[in-house]
Amino acid sequence: MQASAQIGVTGLAVMGRNLARNFARHGYTVALHNRTAARTRALVEEFGDEGAFVPTETAEDFVAALERPRRLMIMVKAGAATDAVIDEFAPLLEPGDMIIDGGNAHFLDTRRREAALRERGIHFVGSGVSGGEEGALHGPSIMPGGSEESYAVLGPMFEAISAEAEGEPCCTHIGTDGAGHFVKMVHNGIEYADMQLIAEAYDLLRNVAGYAPPQIAEVFREWNKGRLDSYLIEITAEILAHTDARTGKAFVDIVRDAAEQKGTGRWTVQTALDLGTPTTAIAQATFARVASSRSTLREAYRALPGGTEHPLRPHEADRFVATVEHALYASKVIAYDQGWTMIRDAAEEYGWNIDLADIAAIWRGGCIIRAAFLDRIRAAYRADPHLPSLLAEPAFAAEITQAQVPWREVIAAANRRAIPVPAFSAALAYYDTLRADRLPAALIQGQRDYFGAHTYLRTDHEGTFHTLWAEPTRPEVEA
Amino acid sequence: MQASAQIGVTGLAVMGRNLARNFARHGYTVALHNRTAARTRALVEEFGDEGAFVPTETAEDFVAALERPRRLMIMVKAGAATDAVIDEFAPLLEPGDMIIDGGNAHFLDTRRREAALRERGIHFVGSGVSGGEEGALHGPSIMPGGSEESYAVLGPMFEAISAEAEGEPCCTHIGTDGAGHFVKMVHNGIEYADMQLIAEAYDLLRNVAGYAPPQIAEVFREWNKGRLDSYLIEITAEILAHTDARTGKAFVDIVRDAAEQKGTGRWTVQTALDLGTPTTAIAQATFARVASSRSTLREAYRALPGGTEHPLRPHEADRFVATVEHALYASKVIAYDQGWTMIRDAAEEYGWNIDLADIAAIWRGGCIIRAAFLDRIRAAYRADPHLPSLLAEPAFAAEITQAQVPWREVIAAANRRAIPVPAFSAALAYYDTLRADRLPAALIQGQRDYFGAHTYLRTDHEGTFHTLWAEPTRPEVEA
Repeated sequence: MQASAQIGVTGLAVMGRNLARNFARHGYTVALHNRTAARTRALVEEFGDEGAFVPTETAEDFVAALERPRRLMIMVKAGAATDAVIDEFAPLLEPGDMIIDGGNAHFLDTRRREAALRERGIHFVGSGVSGGEEGALHGPSIMPGGSEESYAVLGPMFEAISAEAEGEPCCTHIGTDGAGHFVKMVHNGIEYADMQLIAEAYDLLRNVAGYAPPQIAEVFREWNKGRLDSYLIEITAEILAHTDARTGKAFVDIVRDAAEQKGTGRWTVQTALDLGTPTTAIAQATFARVASSRSTLREAYRALPGGTEHPLRPHEADRFVATVEHALYASKVIAYDQGWTMIRDAAEEYGWNIDLADIAAIWRGGCIIRAAFLDRIRAAYRADPHLPSLLAEPAFAAEITQAQVPWREVIAAANRRAIPVPAFSAALAYYDTLRADRLPAALIQGQRDYFGAHTYLRTDHEGTFHTLWAEPTRPEVEA
Repeated sequence: MQASAQIGVTGLAVMGRNLARNFARHGYTVALHNRTAARTRALVEEFGDEGAFVPTETAEDFVAALERPRRLMIMVKAGAATDAVIDEFAPLLEPGDMIIDGGNAHFLDTRRREAALRERGIHFVGSGVSGGEEGALHGPSIMPGGSEESYAVLGPMFEAISAEAEGEPCCTHIGTDGAGHFVKMVHNGIEYADMQLIAEAYDLLRNVAGYAPPQIAEVFREWNKGRLDSYLIEITAEILAHTDARTGKAFVDIVRDAAEQKGTGRWTVQTALDLGTPTTAIAQATFARVASSRSTLREAYRALPGGTEHPLRPHEADRFVATVEHALYASKVIAYDQGWTMIRDAAEEYGWNIDLADIAAIWRGGCIIRAAFLDRIRAAYRADPHLPSLLAEPAFAAEITQAQVPWREVIAAANRRAIPVPAFSAALAYYDTLRADRLPAALIQGQRDYFGAHTYLRTDHEGTFHTLWAEPTRPEVEA
């Protein structure tokens, strides 16, 4: 076996197969390996003319086919399967070789694996890959973690196969160890929020404005020409315009309204709780999916009363559309701000040197949340890497200012008519919480001191205090 | 050393000390042990006349002082300290002996410990203890997990020292292994939600009604005579009525408005995400505490505009108070409903035989969320143990029905004035989500099918479907 391949891919299900083809189409020689060799053979038979493939059947042959330092990409199910593949290949590798995990691993697993392999001199590169099957083949957004040294070798290859946005590759070195998988997780969390916000906007246009799905498709098409321009808005218009062939009804009306998930939204919120990042829009989006699938609970609540107001009249409805656009945009800015805050928090917690502008840059192509306004997020963090929040940037602040009345009006309109707007509401509550001069958190601190002697800080004096609530005069003592 | 003690307590910080005293005051002979013997001696010196204590200095003496089967209660910090104490004592015990962990362990740790000790024939009883220092001394709410056999022995002792509510002990066998610590965790999660809801109600009375803290204290005192009657409402009135001696200002105005937490709210939400329970009110309450402490973010948002409306005029304000009561009560019912749903979900997941009525019963006394309306929750689950939701019970449904207009009005009033109401809003969104006939989750399923071929179910046909979105006619195929 001649060591001729610049990259090897093991795990040739659809994502692995398409990434392997993408590498080959860009001139790389790609070694192929799969647990069952039939898949390897099928790839070569079907797509062998797309480039240089080296099909192998055994782990030893696979490793022997790779140029040094060996670059071995594993595309298997996250979890135990990933550990099994690492355990299989690591003993065959030498110091300086690189294992890339392109699956959706939890970043804490990636950190554990990276530390273990680093001890053996092997680079482990947990790498987020976004864009699904099509992205994997035609250009995904790639988020590699791992060492600087590994990126020096892998970067040019990843940048070659990644999506492009305005001539720039949608790939950058995110940070060390688990930073890549972390950022991919947050990408998916933001995706949950974005999808839920769009779903709520649709629901409002449907049930407050009284529009039919094709009309709403038209609204989304219009929105897609403006600041909301994004892949998710674009496909929403397509979905809403689609008519079900079987029934002649709008497609959206024949789909069962129970949203499923694969877990990255859940991971994002669980991690945010550990980091202390209030990612409320992502949390509400995740819980909204869960709630939609709780059929017994929905049955129990169904008979209960809701709002009393009717849909709007046509001339009010048309005006309402512009209002919803403001609310959707403002909520979206908040959701993204929460995501970026979470990345910053993690960078601090784990010692990652993450360029927040680069994150926006590499999400402009290839991935699900690609959107025109990521250019503006990039510009904001490029101008000030220490920007404490997107809303500290004047243009975003101006838009949020303009959105005040419509944003609040839309939520009120939804609440009056019992249209559920958990993510819109969470975004507004987040905004109102952070901008408040004084929060009733002071009362909560008082309660905690009362029942648990948990102490409090004062606004006017340094120190930690406790009030002796059981004594008649309730004296304060320094704790 | 004569084996004369019915119970031993190791770890004599304030909670352990007070529980030991509580046992002694109820006629039990209590063996005492602490890592540093000075604490043991101090307890006997100070409180030795309250009952029969057997102070010991070594682990061996401590164990030797216990009647068989030995009952050894550990009251140390959750986490590594608990494991260390178990490792110290377990080798000294015999089959049939019992270790009770009365700390705030994570229920998954309790499950692990229980399984490990069960193999050695030792009963491990993870037991939630609520009520803080005072509760520990005068009667806490006790939530023991572990085996039926262990409860046969320990139950009478725990029931003797627990709080009483209408003549009944606030203690019951929750379920096997980690059930007790799980239910204690949910108790704390509900406590977070309840505190946040009260804080939002206060904020509304302060900044929408324009009331001063003493007036609001009066409102809470009135509310405490009605269906909101509870410990938290009672102490809120006390706190709001308190004047800071140093400044002459309302106490609540001199406390720094950054809420702290010890982690059980976070655990509740993280666990709810794993179980698939939409505990949105608890989540928003947890994140609200986090957000209040993010001073840099608050600084960044502070200059941004808020609502435009002014506080109410006096006659409107007085009317508004009754409206807030409806909103607070309705939101509270939702928060508790989420908590009970989570307990039911966990019982199913972990095979615990939990009596949902009993949970309400033992929270009526001793613990922080003790409240009159727990009697009604108990009655509801007593009447129908399979009640899918509190709102399926006619009286709760009637109250929620009555609350519709005021609940929605209060949130609208808050939103117009930029008063943050994350938990009120989350409760309403949960209600509107579950009662909706159709949810826009159908659109989300369409999006997931479009970009990820994740498939969907139809409302009119069995089967799993995928639309070939890339083809011009978008045909549907069975997946």
